[in-house]
Amino acid sequence: MDKYDKVTELAKRRGFLWPAFELYGGAAGFYDYGPLGAPLKRRIEDIWRQFFVIQEGFAEIEAPTIGVEGIFQASGHLSGFSDPLTACKECKEIYRADHLIKHIVEVPDALSNEEIYRTIKENEIGCPECGGELSEVYEFNLMFKTMIGPGGKTPGYLRPETAQGMFINFPRLLRHFRDSLPFAAVQIGKSFRNEISPRQGVIRLREFTQAEAEIFIDPRDKSHPRFAEVKDMRMRFYSQEAQEKGVEEEMTFGEAVERGIVAHETLAYYVARTYQFLLAVGIAPDKLRFRQHKSDEMAHYAADCWDAEVLLDRLGWIEIVGVADRTDYDLKAHATQSKVKLSVFVHYDQPVKRERLMVKPDMKALGPRFKGKAKAVADCLKALSPEDRHSDNKFHIMMDDGEEIEIDSSLVSFETIEEEIRGEEIVPHVVEPSFGIDRILYTVLDHSYYEDSTDDEIRAVLRLKPAVAPIEVAVLPLMDREELVSDARKIQEELRGLGMRVDYDTSGSIGRRYRRNDEVGTPYEITVDYETLEQGTVTIRDRDSMKQIRVPKWQVVEKLRALLDGCLRFEEAGDPVQSAKE
Amino acid sequence: MDKYDKVTELAKRRGFLWPAFELYGGAAGFYDYGPLGAPLKRRIEDIWRQFFVIQEGFAEIEAPTIGVEGIFQASGHLSGFSDPLTACKECKEIYRADHLIKHIVEVPDALSNEEIYRTIKENEIGCPECGGELSEVYEFNLMFKTMIGPGGKTPGYLRPETAQGMFINFPRLLRHFRDSLPFAAVQIGKSFRNEISPRQGVIRLREFTQAEAEIFIDPRDKSHPRFAEVKDMRMRFYSQEAQEKGVEEEMTFGEAVERGIVAHETLAYYVARTYQFLLAVGIAPDKLRFRQHKSDEMAHYAADCWDAEVLLDRLGWIEIVGVADRTDYDLKAHATQSKVKLSVFVHYDQPVKRERLMVKPDMKALGPRFKGKAKAVADCLKALSPEDRHSDNKFHIMMDDGEEIEIDSSLVSFETIEEEIRGEEIVPHVVEPSFGIDRILYTVLDHSYYEDSTDDEIRAVLRLKPAVAPIEVAVLPLMDREELVSDARKIQEELRGLGMRVDYDTSGSIGRRYRRNDEVGTPYEITVDYETLEQGTVTIRDRDSMKQIRVPKWQVVEKLRALLDGCLRFEEAGDPVQSAKE
Repeated sequence: MDKYDKVTELAKRRGFLWPAFELYGGAAGFYDYGPLGAPLKRRIEDIWRQFFVIQEGFAEIEAPTIGVEGIFQASGHLSGFSDPLTACKECKEIYRADHLIKHIVEVPDALSNEEIYRTIKENEIGCPECGGELSEVYEFNLMFKTMIGPGGKTPGYLRPETAQGMFINFPRLLRHFRDSLPFAAVQIGKSFRNEISPRQGVIRLREFTQAEAEIFIDPRDKSHPRFAEVKDMRMRFYSQEAQEKGVEEEMTFGEAVERGIVAHETLAYYVARTYQFLLAVGIAPDKLRFRQHKSDEMAHYAADCWDAEVLLDRLGWIEIVGVADRTDYDLKAHATQSKVKLSVFVHYDQPVKRERLMVKPDMKALGPRFKGKAKAVADCLKALSPEDRHSDNKFHIMMDDGEEIEIDSSLVSFETIEEEIRGEEIVPHVVEPSFGIDRILYTVLDHSYYEDSTDDEIRAVLRLKPAVAPIEVAVLPLMDREELVSDARKIQEELRGLGMRVDYDTSGSIGRRYRRNDEVGTPYEITVDYETLEQGTVTIRDRDSMKQIRVPKWQVVEKLRALLDGCLRFEEAGDPVQSAKE
Repeated sequence: MDKYDKVTELAKRRGFLWPAFELYGGAAGFYDYGPLGAPLKRRIEDIWRQFFVIQEGFAEIEAPTIGVEGIFQASGHLSGFSDPLTACKECKEIYRADHLIKHIVEVPDALSNEEIYRTIKENEIGCPECGGELSEVYEFNLMFKTMIGPGGKTPGYLRPETAQGMFINFPRLLRHFRDSLPFAAVQIGKSFRNEISPRQGVIRLREFTQAEAEIFIDPRDKSHPRFAEVKDMRMRFYSQEAQEKGVEEEMTFGEAVERGIVAHETLAYYVARTYQFLLAVGIAPDKLRFRQHKSDEMAHYAADCWDAEVLLDRLGWIEIVGVADRTDYDLKAHATQSKVKLSVFVHYDQPVKRERLMVKPDMKALGPRFKGKAKAVADCLKALSPEDRHSDNKFHIMMDDGEEIEIDSSLVSFETIEEEIRGEEIVPHVVEPSFGIDRILYTVLDHSYYEDSTDDEIRAVLRLKPAVAPIEVAVLPLMDREELVSDARKIQEELRGLGMRVDYDTSGSIGRRYRRNDEVGTPYEITVDYETLEQGTVTIRDRDSMKQIRVPKWQVVEKLRALLDGCLRFEEAGDPVQSAKE
């Protein structure tokens, strides 16, 4: 068994991750988070929330997972979010057509469906299962489709990303933030992609969890007020240039922006915050890199894009976060589709004076000609500019009652006026950090998994950070006897009262119970033994060192809180137990 | 405007609840939680988790929202989860057929589709829109359907409840809890019902959030070890009997169980916990009742069922939680459908001795007849009991190779043996508290909304509990001037560092800013003014009393934490400000 198998087996056996619907034969691409996986996930999400909602002050929203058609027409998912398929004419099996020619064409993505089909034909590629003839290549949209309400007239789609929920709420968010930039909204929630044949456990799911932030900024100034806080942080950047050389380059974020390696301060700031977050949940820094998208892999509208990639056993380097400057692409697409203005009126610090050529109606000429309507005609003309004149040298105006009138230029003069411009409408740019929570969780498991050998066995241990551990402490009476149990239960209740995640376990030898807790990453165990009855002390055991200390029973809750919060070193928390042998 | 309109308007304007997809014309039954609604929801869910996951020790899991067909065949949703519809033959509008005859038939639910259609015909009911003729009545399944993967062969359904995710994971959960009862699992997550024409805001949604617990108990003993903790709690019970009289009856939970009003301790315990939870999040106790299902409304398999109902402005009494004893219905249904044993082997305290009549093969007679097969035949016979004898006085056995053999009774004798029975396989019963989070959230808004009049205006205020308030504190510099702003920003950062939800606002008069915070339920405001610069003190304002106190700047964070936690009374937190006039 390699590490991948070991982690996967552990995750399934101990209730972190279960392949879903096993009772009914299962379905690829769906997983359950079990009794240990769900709290681990929840705690990772809570730390994310601490970083981006509490500390950055971003607005968390929760939009439906079902969306209406217009959203995905605008976002491009309806037309472009698809994979090329081919089906075996004999056995009816369906395949990713581009995958079948990977060994022939280097970049099959670049081919059209016709070209892929031609390549299949020319190379006489048959069904991998039965050798049968393959069908023409067709597009399969990766959105799950359903129908809203009866009648079958209103299609709905399960969102392929949470981002659109923020974009379509732009006008409301802008109002919430009192009409000024920058501001940001986030969502943590389910997204869906109807993958053809997903494998690789939770790395490629049909239903998965994203945490995305859409940060709306003023495109004229992409500096960041808190950049100073991260400027001197060092990280390894795998820039476009570094990728050509094949080696990452370590530098400070300040240097990365100065040298133009990261496009601007705001993007760099959120890359830095992403880095801090990933370390906080327990990603190993030596198996983490930030890779810049190459120019041919970046979306055409993006100004810059960095992926956080992690090294996973067997799977190699896997993307877990993307941080991109998406410019004004999304808001413009939705403005076009919805015909609603999606921009911000930005006030200048000082009003700007500007000369403008205006149309000045000649009332003496208009009066006799239009009589009672003359004033209305003049008002229409005043709103025009000289450039509105048609090639026939006439202005075309439309009256309130719908009447169209042509006005010859001879009926107006032109006048230069000085205007005071107080600001302008701008379409914000969007910086988007997008996190794949399932992949991050799996990485935390992989990077936390260690084996060491105790006297006569291999010990498997998840070195989870206390901040993410699904069980923070296990309370273990040495024996299942009333006198020990009653003290242990009291400690358990007290810890739970503080909101801690506590396990209580009496089954099996104490060594076996320690081992069970080690492999699910419980940082500390409290053992109630006969000295508890005699001396009033209990032991606390440290998962990683397997060392034990004794502390007075009445202090144990407070000490444990301090240990978990990291404000107390284990060695200083109590008297070492010499004889602790497991 | 009645209160319903006021709460709805406030919820929309301030970003609690937004009708979804407005940019694209909207869709009934879908809502966004905005920047204030999402944290309110999150905090309600966290309190629920504190009650049921941390304190009860239930296992939280997270199953996919898409489910495969077998699940819903077993649960009955595929065949039974539907509404009767009729369509106008002229304008094509679709209606709930049973709703159209409400004024004619008292319980239209009891009629078959044919009977509903006959009633429509006989009463000459036409299309409410255009008067056109109505079609025959047909069933519309309320599950959203989609297809998993390409090929259109694997239907998937958006789950109509989270409960099934726990039921189908029963074998794994049982293993997680080391094969012993009782144990429980919970989920908080999205569920979906494709309602025909949902109205009433978030009270009837097509996509909504449930928090459900499935508590698996031993059917032979429905007492609860912690019932003593709630026994003396008083509550108003609207029992079947009380409903006949039309008045609720107040009593203790102990009395309710003793008198047989609530079926058993376990059900009563979770009704009590539900009651405590609802009060903790801010449901008004005088607008809350627990109503027992009448025998004709209870599911045929349920042993007892109590709904928490709240009184809402305009909408009347609305169900927000159901607590039911579902017996062994769900596990048995899934065992039948999946052909997997869903039971627990329960060990007796003491092994039970039992006499059993066994089949004893007569080897002397079998040997010559079956030769080499004689031993295998004998083994088959030993596994049988005398009752397995067919009416023809023969035993029918099947050999491993599929051969069926008939054995005449004369070839065996019967023998009484004494067995030691160590336990038995039992199918657990399920107690299910099921919470509608969206309805609870709306109720919290409705029950928290108050108006009072200050000098010259009506003040709207949400008296949210600090534990659920989306903003815990607002930091307000009296003026937007550097000397005040810098202190205010420092306080804001410090509060955020503690994980508090802090707003910072400089726009508009201080009175207006207080008002803005009052109407979204911010419990406290900190104001930085010129005395802060001179004396080093800031004011804290209490939302409900509008009183203010002054406290030293360096104490403000600590005092605020204590105020929010409820361990410090406002009057005792600092020096009263006399002149505070808004």
